[in-house]
Amino acid sequence: MNAVSMNEARTIQTHLVLPPDTNHHGSIFGGKVLAYIDEIAGITSMKHARGNTVTASIDSVDFVSSAYAGDVLELEAVVASTGRTSMEIYVRVNALNLVTGTTRLTTESFVTMVAIDEQGKPREVPGVFPETEADKRLFKTAPGRRAHRNAKRSLESHK
Amino acid sequence: MNAVSMNEARTIQTHLVLPPDTNHHGSIFGGKVLAYIDEIAGITSMKHARGNTVTASIDSVDFVSSAYAGDVLELEAVVASTGRTSMEIYVRVNALNLVTGTTRLTTESFVTMVAIDEQGKPREVPGVFPETEADKRLFKTAPGRRAHRNAKRSLESHK
Amino acid sequence: MNAVSMNEARTIQTHLVLPPDTNHHGSIFGGKVLAYIDEIAGITSMKHARGNTVTASIDSVDFVSSAYAGDVLELEAVVASTGRTSMEIYVRVNALNLVTGTTRLTTESFVTMVAIDEQGKPREVPGVFPETEADKRLFKTAPGRRAHRNAKRSLESHK
Amino acid sequence: MNAVSMNEARTIQTHLVLPPDTNHHGSIFGGKVLAYIDEIAGITSMKHARGNTVTASIDSVDFVSSAYAGDVLELEAVVASTGRTSMEIYVRVNALNLVTGTTRLTTESFVTMVAIDEQGKPREVPGVFPETEADKRLFKTAPGRRAHRNAKRSLESHK
Amino acid sequence: MNAVSMNEARTIQTHLVLPPDTNHHGSIFGGKVLAYIDEIAGITSMKHARGNTVTASIDSVDFVSSAYAGDVLELEAVVASTGRTSMEIYVRVNALNLVTGTTRLTTESFVTMVAIDEQGKPREVPGVFPETEADKRLFKTAPGRRAHRNAKRSLESHK
Amino acid sequence: MNAVSMNEARTIQTHLVLPPDTNHHGSIFGGKVLAYIDEIAGITSMKHARGNTVTASIDSVDFVSSAYAGDVLELEAVVASTGRTSMEIYVRVNALNLVTGTTRLTTESFVTMVAIDEQGKPREVPGVFPETEADKRLFKTAPGRRAHRNAKRSLESHK
Ligand SMILES: CC(C)(COP(=O)(O)OP(=O)(O)OC[C@H]1O[C@@H](n2cnc3c(N)ncnc32)[C@H](O)[C@@H]1OP(=O)(O)O)[C@@H](O)C(=O)NCCC(=O)NCCS
Ligand SMILES: CC(C)(COP(=O)(O)OP(=O)(O)OC[C@H]1O[C@@H](n2cnc3c(N)ncnc32)[C@H](O)[C@@H]1OP(=O)(O)O)[C@@H](O)C(=O)NCCC(=O)NCCS
Ligand SMILES: CC(C)(COP(=O)(O)OP(=O)(O)OC[C@H]1O[C@@H](n2cnc3c(N)ncnc32)[C@H](O)[C@@H]1OP(=O)(O)O)[C@@H](O)C(=O)NCCC(=O)NCCS
Ligand SMILES: CC(C)(COP(=O)(O)OP(=O)(O)OC[C@H]1O[C@@H](n2cnc3c(N)ncnc32)[C@H](O)[C@@H]1OP(=O)(O)O)[C@@H](O)C(=O)NCCC(=O)NCCS
Repeated sequence: MNAVSMNEARTIQTHLVLPPDTNHHGSIFGGKVLAYIDEIAGITSMKHARGNTVTASIDSVDFVSSAYAGDVLELEAVVASTGRTSMEIYVRVNALNLVTGTTRLTTESFVTMVAIDEQGKPREVPGVFPETEADKRLFKTAPGRRAHRNAKRSLESHK
Repeated sequence: MNAVSMNEARTIQTHLVLPPDTNHHGSIFGGKVLAYIDEIAGITSMKHARGNTVTASIDSVDFVSSAYAGDVLELEAVVASTGRTSMEIYVRVNALNLVTGTTRLTTESFVTMVAIDEQGKPREVPGVFPETEADKRLFKTAPGRRAHRNAKRSLESHK
Repeated sequence: MNAVSMNEARTIQTHLVLPPDTNHHGSIFGGKVLAYIDEIAGITSMKHARGNTVTASIDSVDFVSSAYAGDVLELEAVVASTGRTSMEIYVRVNALNLVTGTTRLTTESFVTMVAIDEQGKPREVPGVFPETEADKRLFKTAPGRRAHRNAKRSLESHK
Repeated sequence: MNAVSMNEARTIQTHLVLPPDTNHHGSIFGGKVLAYIDEIAGITSMKHARGNTVTASIDSVDFVSSAYAGDVLELEAVVASTGRTSMEIYVRVNALNLVTGTTRLTTESFVTMVAIDEQGKPREVPGVFPETEADKRLFKTAPGRRAHRNAKRSLESHK
Repeated sequence: MNAVSMNEARTIQTHLVLPPDTNHHGSIFGGKVLAYIDEIAGITSMKHARGNTVTASIDSVDFVSSAYAGDVLELEAVVASTGRTSMEIYVRVNALNLVTGTTRLTTESFVTMVAIDEQGKPREVPGVFPETEADKRLFKTAPGRRAHRNAKRSLESHK
Repeated sequence: MNAVSMNEARTIQTHLVLPPDTNHHGSIFGGKVLAYIDEIAGITSMKHARGNTVTASIDSVDFVSSAYAGDVLELEAVVASTGRTSMEIYVRVNALNLVTGTTRLTTESFVTMVAIDEQGKPREVPGVFPETEADKRLFKTAPGRRAHRNAKRSLESHK
C-alpha cells in the first residue's frame, strides 16, 4: 500500500462548551473532552483505514488548561504515525474565547487505533508522510513515543 | 463596523453516524441532523457576533438524500448574509462513505440567528463579504431569499 | 383511499423546560425545541400514514418568543394537508407559565414528511379534511404555502 | 382553597418507541417507561400546585404488557386525590400499534408528589373533584389506596 | 436448583450528583434516582438469574430525603426473596456528603424482576438465603410484602 | 495530614453493556468505557480529597480485551499513590459474562487527578498506604510510573 499524506485524514471538530458540561467553577469536565477526543480519533482513523477501527489504547491525555462555558472548543486530529495495522492519532484541543477572539491550548492526546476487518481481526493500513512543519515534528518524534509506550507496558506487566 | 470575510466564521464539523441514530432501514433520523445543524449554526453565528446569539427561525432544511450508519457526516457553515442584528447562516451537510471514499450532499439549510446583548436584546453585527466562488453565489442570492421569507411570513400571519 | 379527519392523527405533547435546556439567560435552546418538533411531526405523520415516514424538509420554524426554565411547553401537531405520498405537518408550541397560569405562542413550524414502504420508497397516504375552525384555516392556506415552497426550491436550485 | 376539576391538570404525552429503548426482544426497557412516568407525574402535579413539587414516593408501577420498537406510547396523567400538601397522581400508559391502529394498556402507576415552597418546605394544595366516570372511580378508591400505603410503610419501618 | 446466598448477586453502584441532575433548589430529580434504581435492579436480577430479565413491577420507591449536587450516591441492591420465576429486589440509596464524610438514607425501593428465556417466556430461578443480619430481616419480611402486593393488586383490579 | 488506607476511597461501579453502546460486532465503544473510567476516577479522588478535584492527565488506558452487549462491567478504582496535591488513580475494568459466570480483565487505566480549592487552585491531599497484596504492588511500582510520566512529558515538550 502507498503511504498517503497526513493531510488526507486530518479532521476538524468544533463544539460549544455548555453549562451542563461544566463543574461549579464553570470549567469543563474532563470526561466531556475525553468523549470528543475519542470521537474525533475514531473518525480520523476510519478515514485513513477506509473502514472500521477500534481503540487499542489511550496513550496520554494532558489537560494543560481548562475551558469554560461559552468557549468554543476546536479539535484537530491527524494520523501521527502508523504500524502495520495500528495508527497513532494525535489530537489537539484549543479553546477559543469568543469575546476576546483569543485561542489557547487546552488538551493534547495520543491514541492508538487498530483497523479491523469484518471478523474483527486486525487489518493492514497504508503508511503516512508529513507535509506541514508541525506534522513533520509529530512524525519524527513517533519512534521515541513508541519506545516509551513499550517501556511502560513492560513496567505494568506485573499486574 | 467593518464587514469581515465570510471565511472568518466558517465552521467545520464531522460526525460519525452510529446505529442508535438510525431507523430500521439504517438511515439517519432527521432530528439528529437537525440537532447538528442547530449546533453549527449557533457556533458560526457566535464566532461572527463575538458573543451570544439566539435562533430566530429555521428558514429551510432540505433532506435531499439520506446518510447511513457508518457514514461520516461533514458539516460546513458560513454567514451567508447579514441584516442589522440578524445573520443568515447557510449549512451544508455531506455524507462521506468511508469504504468508497465518495461524498454526496445530504442536507442543506438556511437559519436566521440574531445577536443579543446581556439583557437578551438584539445587538448590531458586522456585515460580511464573500471571497470564494461558492460564497459569492450564496451572498448574491441573499436578497431573493429574504424577499421570500418576508412573503412567507405575511402568508402565515393569519394564524 | 378515503380522506380522514385532521382530528385523527392530532398529537399532543407536554414538556417541562429544565435548566440544562436553557442558556445563561434561562431561555430554552432552539435546538431543544427543534428536537421536540421533529419528534411530534414524526409521530403525527406515522399515525396518519400507519407506518414509517421520513422527514423530507423542514419548511419553516419561527421562534416568536422564548420559553424559560420552569415553563411547561405544550406542543400540538396536525396533518395540515397532503400530497400523494407527502404530508405537511403543522406544529404549534405554546409555553405555559405555571405560576400565572398564562399561555403564549413560542414557536410555529411546518414540516414535510413522506410515507415510505419497507424498501424506503415513497408510498401513498390518505387525504385529510378539517373540522375545527383553526384546522379549516390551515387547510385552506395550504396551496399558498405549497406554491411558496416550490418557488423557494427553484430559487435555491443553483447551489 | 377551592377544589378544582381533575380535568384541569390532566396531561397527555406521546412518545415513539425507538430501537435503542428496547432490549434484544425489541421490547421497551422498564427504565424508559419509568422516566416518562416520572416526567408526566411531575408536570401534572406542577400544573395542579402551580409551582414546584418533589416526588415523595412511587407507590406502584405495574408493567401489564410490553411495547415494541415502532409502537407509539400514549401517557395520560391526572391528580387522583389530594392530601394537605401531597397529590396522588395516576398515570396510564397505552401502546398504539401504528399498523393495526389498536391500542392496549401497557403500564399503570400511582405516584405521590408533594408541593414545596421556595425553601423546599411542603406547601398546601387545592383539592380535586372528578367529572368523568373513570375519574370518579379513581377518586372513590383513593382512601383504600391510602390505607394500604400507610400499612406498607409501617411494614417497612423496621429497616 | 439450589438456593444461593444473597451475597452472590449483591451489587454496588456509586454516582456523583451533577448540577444538571438537580432542580433549582440543587436537589436531585426523582427521575434520575429512579433510573439508577432501575439499572441496578436489572443488573442484580441478571446476575442472580444468569441471563435476561424484565421489570414486572416497581412495588415502591420512597424518597425519604434528598441528595444535592456534589453528593455521592451509593446504591446497594440484593435479591430479597424469590418466587418461581420472579425476584424481589431491594435497593437502598445512601447519599455521602464528601466534605463532612457523613452518609444518610435517601431512597429505598422494592422492584419485582422476572427471568425470561430466549423467547421472552418466564424461566425458573434459584432461591436465595440470607447471611448478614440486615439480609435476614429483609428475607423474613418478604411474605408480608408479598401479601400486601397481592392485596393492592385486587384493590386496583376495577380499573 | 495523616496518610489513610487505600481501602478508604476504593470505589466500585457496575454497568450493563447495552446494544447502543456497541459497534456492529457487538463490542463496546472505547469512548463508553472511557466515560465510566473518568467518572469513577473522579469519585475516588473526591472521596480521598474530601472535595473537588480536576483531571490533570489520563496517563494510560489499555483496552486488553473487549466486552459485549449483555456483559456486566465491574469497575474498581483506588488511589494508587499521591503527590502533594495530585493523586494517581488506578482503574480496573472487568467484564462478567452472565451466562458462564466468568470474569476477565477488559481495561486498565492510570489517571492523575488534582485536588482544587474554591478558587480552582491545587490543594494538599493526605497520603495513602496499602493493605492488600494487590494494593502493595500498585503502591510500590508508583515511582517507576511517575519517572516514566516525567520522561514522556519532556519528550512531548517540543510541541
Ligand atoms: C429573535 C428575537 C430576539 C427578535 O426580537 P425582536 O424584538 O423581534 O427584535 P427586532 O424586531 O428588533 O428584530 C431583530 C432582528 O430579528 C429579526 N427577526 C425577528 N423575528 C424574526 C423571525 N421570526 N425570523 C427571522 N428573523 C426575525 C428581524 O428581522 C431583525 O433583523 P435585522 O436586525 O437584521 O433587521 C425575538 O423574537 C426572540 O427572542 N425570539 C425567541 C428566540 C429564541 O428564544 N429562540 C430559541 C428557542 S424558542
Ligand atoms: C423524501 C424522499 C423519500 C423523496 O424521495 P423521491 O425519490 O424524491 O420521491 P418522489 O420524487 O416520488 O417524491 C415523493 C414525495 O416527496 C416530496 N419531496 C421530495 N423531495 C422533497 C423535499 N426536498 N422537500 C419536500 N418534499 C419533497 C415530493 O414532492 C413527493 O410528494 P407527493 O408524493 O406528495 O407529491 C427522499 O428525498 C429521501 O429519502 N430523502 C432523505 C430523507 C431522510 O432520510 N431524512 C432524514 C435525515 S437526512
Ligand atoms: C416529600 C417530603 C418533602 C416530605 O417532607 P416531610 O418533612 O416529611 O413533610 P410532612 O411530614 O409535612 O409531609 C408532607 C406530605 O408528604 C407526605 N409524605 C411524606 N413522606 C412520604 C412518603 N415517603 N411517601 C409518600 N408521601 C409522603 C405526607 O403524607 C404529607 O402529605 P399531606 O400533607 O398530604 O398529608 C420530604 O420527605 C422530602 O423532601 N423527600 C425527598 C423528596 C425528593 O427529593 N425526591 C426526589 C429525589 S430523592
Ligand atoms: C491540573 C492543574 C490544576 C495543575 O495546575 P498547576 O498550576 O500546573 O499546578 P502545579 O504546578 O502546582 O501542579 C499541581 C499538581 O498537578 C500536577 N500536574 C500538573 N500538570 C499535570 C499534568 N499535565 N499531568 C499530570 N499531573 C500534572 C503536578 O505534578 C502537581 O502535582 P503534586 O502537587 O502532586 O506534585 C491545571 O493544569 C489545570 O487546571 N488543568 C486543567 C484541568 C481541567 O480542567 N481538566 C478537565 C478538562 S480540560
